[in-house]
This record gives sequence, C-alpha cells and structure tokens, in this order.
Amino acid sequence: MFAQRLDKIAPFRVMEVLARAGELEAAGHEVVHLEVGEPDFSTAAPIVEAGRVALADGKTKYTAATGIIPLREKIAAHYAELGVEVCPERIIITSGASGGLTLLSALLLNPGDEILITDPGYPCNEVFAQLVGGVPRPMIVTANNGFQPKVTDIRDAWTARTKGVLLASPANPTGTMLHSSDLQEIAGYVANQDGFFVLDEIYQGLVRGEVYRTGLSISQELFILNSFSKYFGMTGWRLGWIVVPEQAIEYVTRLAQNLFICPSTPAQYAALSAFDLDSMQIHEERAREFDARCERLYEGLLALGFQIPVRPNGAFYLYVDVSHTGLTSTEFCQRLLDEYFVAVTPGEDFGANENDRYVRFAYTTSMASIDLALDRLAQALQAW
Amino acid sequence: MFAQRLDKIAPFRVMEVLARAGELEAAGHEVVHLEVGEPDFSTAAPIVEAGRVALADGKTKYTAATGIIPLREKIAAHYAELGVEVCPERIIITSGASGGLTLLSALLLNPGDEILITDPGYPCNEVFAQLVGGVPRPMIVTANNGFQPKVTDIRDAWTARTKGVLLASPANPTGTMLHSSDLQEIAGYVANQDGFFVLDEIYQGLVRGEVYRTGLSISQELFILNSFSKYFGMTGWRLGWIVVPEQAIEYVTRLAQNLFICPSTPAQYAALSAFDLDSMQIHEERAREFDARCERLYEGLLALGFQIPVRPNGAFYLYVDVSHTGLTSTEFCQRLLDEYFVAVTPGEDFGANENDRYVRFAYTTSMASIDLALDRLAQALQAW
Repeated sequence: MFAQRLDKIAPFRVMEVLARAGELEAAGHEVVHLEVGEPDFSTAAPIVEAGRVALADGKTKYTAATGIIPLREKIAAHYAELGVEVCPERIIITSGASGGLTLLSALLLNPGDEILITDPGYPCNEVFAQLVGGVPRPMIVTANNGFQPKVTDIRDAWTARTKGVLLASPANPTGTMLHSSDLQEIAGYVANQDGFFVLDEIYQGLVRGEVYRTGLSISQELFILNSFSKYFGMTGWRLGWIVVPEQAIEYVTRLAQNLFICPSTPAQYAALSAFDLDSMQIHEERAREFDARCERLYEGLLALGFQIPVRPNGAFYLYVDVSHTGLTSTEFCQRLLDEYFVAVTPGEDFGANENDRYVRFAYTTSMASIDLALDRLAQALQAW
Repeated sequence: MFAQRLDKIAPFRVMEVLARAGELEAAGHEVVHLEVGEPDFSTAAPIVEAGRVALADGKTKYTAATGIIPLREKIAAHYAELGVEVCPERIIITSGASGGLTLLSALLLNPGDEILITDPGYPCNEVFAQLVGGVPRPMIVTANNGFQPKVTDIRDAWTARTKGVLLASPANPTGTMLHSSDLQEIAGYVANQDGFFVLDEIYQGLVRGEVYRTGLSISQELFILNSFSKYFGMTGWRLGWIVVPEQAIEYVTRLAQNLFICPSTPAQYAALSAFDLDSMQIHEERAREFDARCERLYEGLLALGFQIPVRPNGAFYLYVDVSHTGLTSTEFCQRLLDEYFVAVTPGEDFGANENDRYVRFAYTTSMASIDLALDRLAQALQAW
C-alpha cells in the first residue's frame, strides 16, 4: 500500500546506536556520546530570553510564509558584515534546513532530473531529491581531494539528465570545506550547463583558519542552504534560511505558502536576537571551544594510531579511518559501544564509498568526555 | 530552470486581498478582516506559560522525529476521552498539519498515483500531492450534499490509477462535516479497493450539535490529519499530528527522521499543557464564542438576502452565495474591500467548481467587527 520511495530510505544506523546507548545507560553504564550531530550547548541565554519575551508578547500567530522582515534584514546585515550584499527579499526563512531542502527540491527538480551529491555526505539529501521524484547521483569524493569534488568530478558525473549539484561546505561527515577555487570553477561549469548549484552552509561560522565565510562571496548564483541550528545553537527550534537568486523569489514564496504556511513564529522572534553582540560572543566562544575539542580529539586519535586523512576546518566532526583495528566500521562501532560505552556513528550512514573503513566522531561533548573516550579507546585497542 | 510543478501552483487570491487590505489600513481605513483562516485569539495563557517554562528549562534541542512520548500519550488520552482507543505509537507529532500532509503524501503516493480531493477544498492539498508526483483529482461537491461527497461520488471518480481519497471534516471553506454514515460507506469502499482514506480533522473540537468527535470512532483504518493550530489556538507554533495504522509507523518514522529531524521542541513542551483542564476551559469558551459569531454572521447575511445553502456545523467559515448581487465572487470581494473596507476570500482560492458564485467569510474576528461588516454590507447592497 505504501509508496515505492520508502524502499530506498534505509534506517539510520545512528538510531540503533542511540537506542543501544539508551539501553546501556538504563543498565547503569556511563556512555560517552560522540555520535550526535547536535551541539551539546543549549541555546544561548539571550536568544532563549528573547523567545520568552516573544511568547509573553503574544507572538504566536502565523507570519508571512517567507518569514518576518526584520529577521530577513538581520540575516542580510550578517552577510553584509561578511562583505557580501544580499537583499533581504532573497532570504527566505524556513523550518530548519530541512524545510529549505524541501523548498529547493520542489523548486529545482522535475521527476527524473538528476542531482549530483557527494558520497560520503549528509544522508537525508537523497531523500529530499527522491521526495519530488528526483534522482540523486552520488559522486565519490576521497581523502585525496579533501572529501570534496573538483570541477572534473562534476564534469565526469554530469549527464543530459543532470540538473544541478548539491555540495556542503563545511561538510558532514568529514568537516571539510570546498576549496574556494574549486567552488568558483564548479559554479562556472554549472552555469554553463544552465544547471543549479546548491551550497549547504549550515556549519557556517563553525570554521577554523583562513577560509571564506560564505560561498556567496565567490558566486552570487548559488542557492544557499543555512540554519540557526549549529553555529547559533537553535536545533530544536527548527529554524533556517535559504538564499535564492532573484528570479526564484516568487516561486519559492508560493511553495512556502502552500507547503509550510510559515516557519515557527516564536523561533523567528527569538532568532532576531541571535545576531546581537552578547549572543554573538557566546556563539564565538562556543566555536572556539569546538576548535579546542577538535584539536584534543584529533591529536588523541592520531596518538592511538587512527588515521584521519583530512584534518577538517569546519563543523564538529572527524571522519576517522578505523581499518588498522582489523574491524569494519560497523563492527568497530558496535563493539566500542557494547564493550567500552563510547557511541560513534559508522560510515554506513553517510554512503557506500569506503563506508566500512570510516567512522564519524562528533565532538559535541565536553572535553572531559572526550578524554574519557580516548582512555576507553586506548583500552579497547589494547584488548582487541 | 525551475520545476514544472510550479506552473500548477496558482498564487492565493487571499494574499492579494491581504496586501490590498494592508494598503488601505496604511491609508487610514479601518478594515474588517473576515478573510483570515486563523483564530483571532492568541494562544491560551497556560500554554504560553508552559512554553516559557520549557524555554527556561532548556528544552531547545532535538527530540525524537516522531515527537516526545508524553505528548503522544496526551493525545492518545484525548482520543480515549472521545471513546476511541489509539495507542501512542500510532500518533506522530508533526510540524503543523502541513508537515503531516508532506509525510502522508510521501508515504502514500507514487508518481502518477491519483488522489481524490474535493472542489471546493483546502487549496494546498493539490500542492502536497503534486510535490511527490501524485495527481490530485478534484471531485465536485455541491450544496445538495452539504459540500461533502457520497460513496457514489467516490465510486464514480475512482479509476485504476486512484490510490486513495483525502476528505476534511469539518471542511474548509464550507465548514461542513462528512456525515457519519457516508464516512463509513466511503471507508468501506476504499478498503475494498485497497486504497487509503486520509481524513483531515484539523477543525476537530470546533463543532456544533450532535456530531461525531473523530472519524476514528467510525473507522480505525483512517489516516488522520490534525493540528494544534485551530481548536488549540497554536497557529504560529507549527505543531500538529497524524494518526496512522500500525503497519505505517516504521515508514512514517523514517520519513520524519529524514525530512524533518523533529517538530519544534518548545512547541511540543508547550502543547503538553494544551489538554490541561484550565487550557481546555479556554478552548471550549472560544469554541462557544465561535458558535455565537457564526450565528450572528449567518443570520445577518441571510437577512441581507445572501444565500448560505448549507449551515455549517464546524470550523469558522461560512461559504456564501453572492450571486444575487449580480457580481462574480471576485468582483464582489474586490469592491467590498475597496469601497467598504471588508476583506473576504473569493471562491477562486478553493477550486473551480462554481467559484464565481461563492465567497468565504471567516468569523475569526470580534462580534463588534462582525456587526460592523454587516452594516457595511447593507450599505454596499443598497448602493450597488
């Protein structure tokens, strides 16, 4: 009775990991959680307070489908600070990046249209394409190229049915960024094909070193996907945004009116304060804390003999080669959890490309927990 | 560059009405708003307070994709009070009824599958079907049958490509309910065809007279769509739920994980108090206030010579025949707004069936505003 697309949706392994971790915790074990793609910090106090004030002020009714204008203006101002001019009309507030992906899929893909994505990559991307009858075409990306495609990869993968490409920078599960020159070349190639280029920047702000702050500084033709979840720490509020070229505004508006009515009103009013100085200071402190954790986990894993072929410059993940343990990544994850109470996510969740070699470690937990995980890993490696 | 489905999405006339009303207000006119499908009441104070407490308690992170268990249990208990047993696992919390429609479309429709809907009906239903490549087939429903289909209508419209039917009770824009015996017959017919039957009950609770409280009391095979927006007054929070048969739970869960991650966390915790006695008293008072307004508007419009062929027993709409004015519904709406500053929604927004005859009046405004609208209508009819 149910639709065929469901057969293509594999359950997430991480859900089994979470369920098993819950069982172990119920049995009295202290589990270290390195599997969760969500900051451990709760939303910054000024944003929470703004949400509480919004509720007290009765901000509980529908807004415009594309979001309240002051929030679109704040985001535009944020881009201006990064040196990029984006008019507020091009910024559409969405129900999380998930809502943005629904809108962009509905906007850009006809049934049968192919969209290029990366393997490994964010697993839900395929499902959003399939939702509208699109055909996701995974491109293998390897450690050699920082787990990001070159324009030659795009060219090789492009067929007559290809309509566009969806890349993430920084990416999940690898934490790596698309190099700016590659971004530029890919944007040029895609434009020549009359295709679209969606750039997922939901980890924007959670970056290290001398990197571009938004792909819009390199190409204004991009469709940008963004979120208040990660850098702004607003996961459960379900709020994000997309940036679209001018000619798409009217279509996206109609889609948003029909498919969402509007994004969460209290969340929108709370997010107005996400760009305030006191909030931004908290976000920046947290970003630096992620840096320190990354450093600790990275060095600790290397010292234990793990290979991390690319040192990431963003997000809060390490994509770690566990093959020296002699276990597949799925076995590694199962045994590490069952025997040493450390939860991590197997490569299987992110694609088919070398997925039995890699494990995603998310450093979305305290430094003390990271140290505990490293101790337990040392014990595990000694015992196995 | 954009997908073909966009050509099928007409802009809502009501958006033009809203924009024009805004202009008139900016020019100093007092506009009476009878066009809005949203309660004028803001969220009941106990729910708002629960939301504020949830925020202060840090309820800002992701929840399970299907929602927090206590809320699913509260909804199950609510059904139990209505005499219907629904296990909490069958209740999936969604991002508004909109999120529920996305999940049900993705669950039930393959590309090319037909789904029967009513004309007039909620205009977005078509878009949700088209999103996944489904083909909405409007069935004409008329005043003779209370703007609801009979099983014979379903049988006549059913083809080899028909997969199921989506009906609403109470319905938008007519406010009428599907008769319980018709519901039963239709459910039986659809089950014989191995089809699905989605029943939209988002106006549940906003009903009058001796009517069934949920279609689940008549058939447990239904897919139920519901929302915290209308009766519970939580529009801007974007929270709803669906009830699915047991064999659908796993599939819906996977879809929800991929397409939504989770519904709004603060909204879920706030909604926990929506079923409390103090909240329910407020909801019931408001439902009775809607009854009184319905009565006033209904009698007032009849006294002015309008035809309202079916007196509705739910929602907060009257579907009014304006043909005695000699104007089409669209002309009527334009002139009423421009000349008398009363905003209503033309039939065009709800389908093609006799749409130039009918206008939707939403009594989502105060009794004083309704009286003012009636005065202005009397003047208009005299002048035209």
